[in-house]
Amino acid sequence: MERMVVIGGDAGGMSAAAQARRMRPLDELEIVAFERGPRTSYAACGLPYLLSGDVATPESLVARSPEKFRMSGIDARVHHEVLAIDSTRRAVLVRELVDGKERWEPFDHLVVGTGSLPVRPPLPGIDAAGVHDLRTIDDALAIEETVGHGRRAVVVGGGYIGIEVAEAMIARGMQVSLVEALPQVMASLSPDMAVPIAEAMEKAGVTLHLGEPVEGFESGADGRVRAVVTAEQTLEADVVVLGLGAKPNIALAREAGLAIGPSGGIAVDDRMETSVESVWAAGDVVQSHHRVSGRPVVIALGTHANKQGRVVGTNIAGGDARFGGVLGTAITKFQDLEIARTGLTEAEAEIAGFDWVELTAEARTRAHYYQGGSPITVRLVGERGTGRLLGGQIVGGPGAGKRIDVVATALWAGMTVGDFAGMDLAYAPPFSPVWDPVLLAAGRLDRLVSAISGYPQG
Amino acid sequence: MERMVVIGGDAGGMSAAAQARRMRPLDELEIVAFERGPRTSYAACGLPYLLSGDVATPESLVARSPEKFRMSGIDARVHHEVLAIDSTRRAVLVRELVDGKERWEPFDHLVVGTGSLPVRPPLPGIDAAGVHDLRTIDDALAIEETVGHGRRAVVVGGGYIGIEVAEAMIARGMQVSLVEALPQVMASLSPDMAVPIAEAMEKAGVTLHLGEPVEGFESGADGRVRAVVTAEQTLEADVVVLGLGAKPNIALAREAGLAIGPSGGIAVDDRMETSVESVWAAGDVVQSHHRVSGRPVVIALGTHANKQGRVVGTNIAGGDARFGGVLGTAITKFQDLEIARTGLTEAEAEIAGFDWVELTAEARTRAHYYQGGSPITVRLVGERGTGRLLGGQIVGGPGAGKRIDVVATALWAGMTVGDFAGMDLAYAPPFSPVWDPVLLAAGRLDRLVSAISGYPQG
Repeated sequence: MERMVVIGGDAGGMSAAAQARRMRPLDELEIVAFERGPRTSYAACGLPYLLSGDVATPESLVARSPEKFRMSGIDARVHHEVLAIDSTRRAVLVRELVDGKERWEPFDHLVVGTGSLPVRPPLPGIDAAGVHDLRTIDDALAIEETVGHGRRAVVVGGGYIGIEVAEAMIARGMQVSLVEALPQVMASLSPDMAVPIAEAMEKAGVTLHLGEPVEGFESGADGRVRAVVTAEQTLEADVVVLGLGAKPNIALAREAGLAIGPSGGIAVDDRMETSVESVWAAGDVVQSHHRVSGRPVVIALGTHANKQGRVVGTNIAGGDARFGGVLGTAITKFQDLEIARTGLTEAEAEIAGFDWVELTAEARTRAHYYQGGSPITVRLVGERGTGRLLGGQIVGGPGAGKRIDVVATALWAGMTVGDFAGMDLAYAPPFSPVWDPVLLAAGRLDRLVSAISGYPQG
Repeated sequence: MERMVVIGGDAGGMSAAAQARRMRPLDELEIVAFERGPRTSYAACGLPYLLSGDVATPESLVARSPEKFRMSGIDARVHHEVLAIDSTRRAVLVRELVDGKERWEPFDHLVVGTGSLPVRPPLPGIDAAGVHDLRTIDDALAIEETVGHGRRAVVVGGGYIGIEVAEAMIARGMQVSLVEALPQVMASLSPDMAVPIAEAMEKAGVTLHLGEPVEGFESGADGRVRAVVTAEQTLEADVVVLGLGAKPNIALAREAGLAIGPSGGIAVDDRMETSVESVWAAGDVVQSHHRVSGRPVVIALGTHANKQGRVVGTNIAGGDARFGGVLGTAITKFQDLEIARTGLTEAEAEIAGFDWVELTAEARTRAHYYQGGSPITVRLVGERGTGRLLGGQIVGGPGAGKRIDVVATALWAGMTVGDFAGMDLAYAPPFSPVWDPVLLAAGRLDRLVSAISGYPQG
């Protein structure tokens, strides 16, 4: 009988547990998972939509409860915190949070799925009541108590969480300000691709404060936040939500001597094994290989956590699975405006050392003569000379965003812009103009990147 | 001064003309296009939506009028029919339909863009008034005159045109029957993928007569159709629309001695040149290379015509462009149900000689906990042993159909199912479950096709 221990009850670790369970019977492999919080496997990416009302109940975000895991042969223990990993003795020190008891739990295979921690800069007043992260269901429930028509919300950070929370707060009738230190929202997009997003937010009533770093928070006599102080002004606030990103939660791994990569995540090979044999890692805590830049990156996203966990579970169970890396694909929306990206932006291509060219095409989501279409902007980045596709961004109306998957697939396959431009994508008037917007962009970009021919070779 | 002559004023020929015009100045290349009908470059694929009202006016379907072409330096002549091609003398015989005058027009480069003809089986009564094809704007205008609330429409053929016309007629309040000789609608899909489409049509009020070949048409004393006679019954009809497919219009090409391929279309190389030097062809009349089966096929679709025409124009202008072939990608919808396919179905894979495996996955278009999602069914076909992806089909609610482009892109790149299953596609709750439906299907299929590993390698 072997024993698999999982640290962290969320997507990375629990996918590993579930996959190993599927492949190895109960009498061959015992599986125990320790989660310090009260829940397992909840969809953190759904939290903003719990606030907006697009998600009906907190319970619906829980993919699988501890009870369900136990019924399927995975001993999932919530309120259990792992304090240390001893990779020589092959055991973890666990504290039961209910009674404070500590004991060593042995493992043959260990999965580190400790996730990420919200970035919380050491600003004056940041720990006041009413200044929230949005990382857990409890965070969402706490924010929910402050939501009310006409109340003032200040969102700090103009990334994914920031714009999703702003959308939710507007939907709930609040007065919403968004403060961002950089001069644009969605800093993961090129600056001019972010312009229509900012416009849509302002049109919806969000007051944007761009290029305006937060310097601190003021509280009232009751200890609750009452204002956000920026470099330029003081913004009154009934509630503050921080969306400043996340960083891998590596304290435990580092103390255990696991190698940490240059990106700040746990270094793993393509089988998701760490620098210590039989110690694996998955999810937000790990470093991944970026298939376009070739560089190590940390990208905290449930979709990677699930895949990585499955790879870990397969390998622990005796299979041989590999994680293929990431492209930095991401999508969100602000009301009807869909926003997506994959691969490298121009700025990222520059840093990665590519001789890049960009092309932006304006088109429509449907044939121009068919009702209900909306504008779509597609930006593609390619490498001069080789013609290699490097990345793409899409901003547009309903139906625009998921088209990024075509670019992601082409990047995954390592296609050139010219080959991409000739593809046979689905066409009918309700779905696309006869020249699909991404192909239109690719055809035009090919003329710029290709050193050989004046026109797409199909 | 060279002279380029185009036969046929639609997508294939006129894209060639436009591209050559872009690349070569007026004093180097004269471009003349002959079209026997009254219009150039209209979007035939939009015709069903003219009937439904999703397209507001017939004029909006005309991408570019003869006047516009002339203003850009292309001498587009409507009501001019080409009667013969003399490839030795390098001239075409043209009749002006207005006055019946005929004359020979010389060419240095000829583009055959004669398109396709509707399939009209020699059934008794098929030429009665009120039995319509839907191939031209005039067809649509003629059908429009018969449309009226409560009137009876019989649609013959359950393919793309058939279901689009049925949708339109239902939208206009008509009583609609659809007659199809085969036992399923959408014969280009696998039989069980067509079941939910038939169900949606019946739920919307379309009376389906499947497996019921049409044997003829009955007319009244006024010569107008009044019923459709099938193998089983007589269906009263105020109007009949035929959607029985199309075949390449090759009479002119065959008489001129151009090689015709086994698929029935004009044989061309990847530069779109026919068997006769400097005689090119593009659009519905040509045979294309199917990238998955490797076989010649005829696929009449505006998107191919546009690309092929552009390749022709580039090559005539002295460039070197290649048409990369087709995948048989197609999309349509019936009301909210989106329908798409690419590559090979199981039946097509069987004919092409592949050792195939299929996998069907049921999922949802959005995260299960996010409002407004709908079911999506993804079927993928792969090759046993090699793991090569061979094709895909998708049927589902809003947002489902265009996901087929991911499969098409993977087919274009020649990916394996295992590589496909690991891709980094865009994920957020309003857009997808955390396991994207196509990746879910690919992951499961990989376990079936892969001879090496029990699990996706990513």
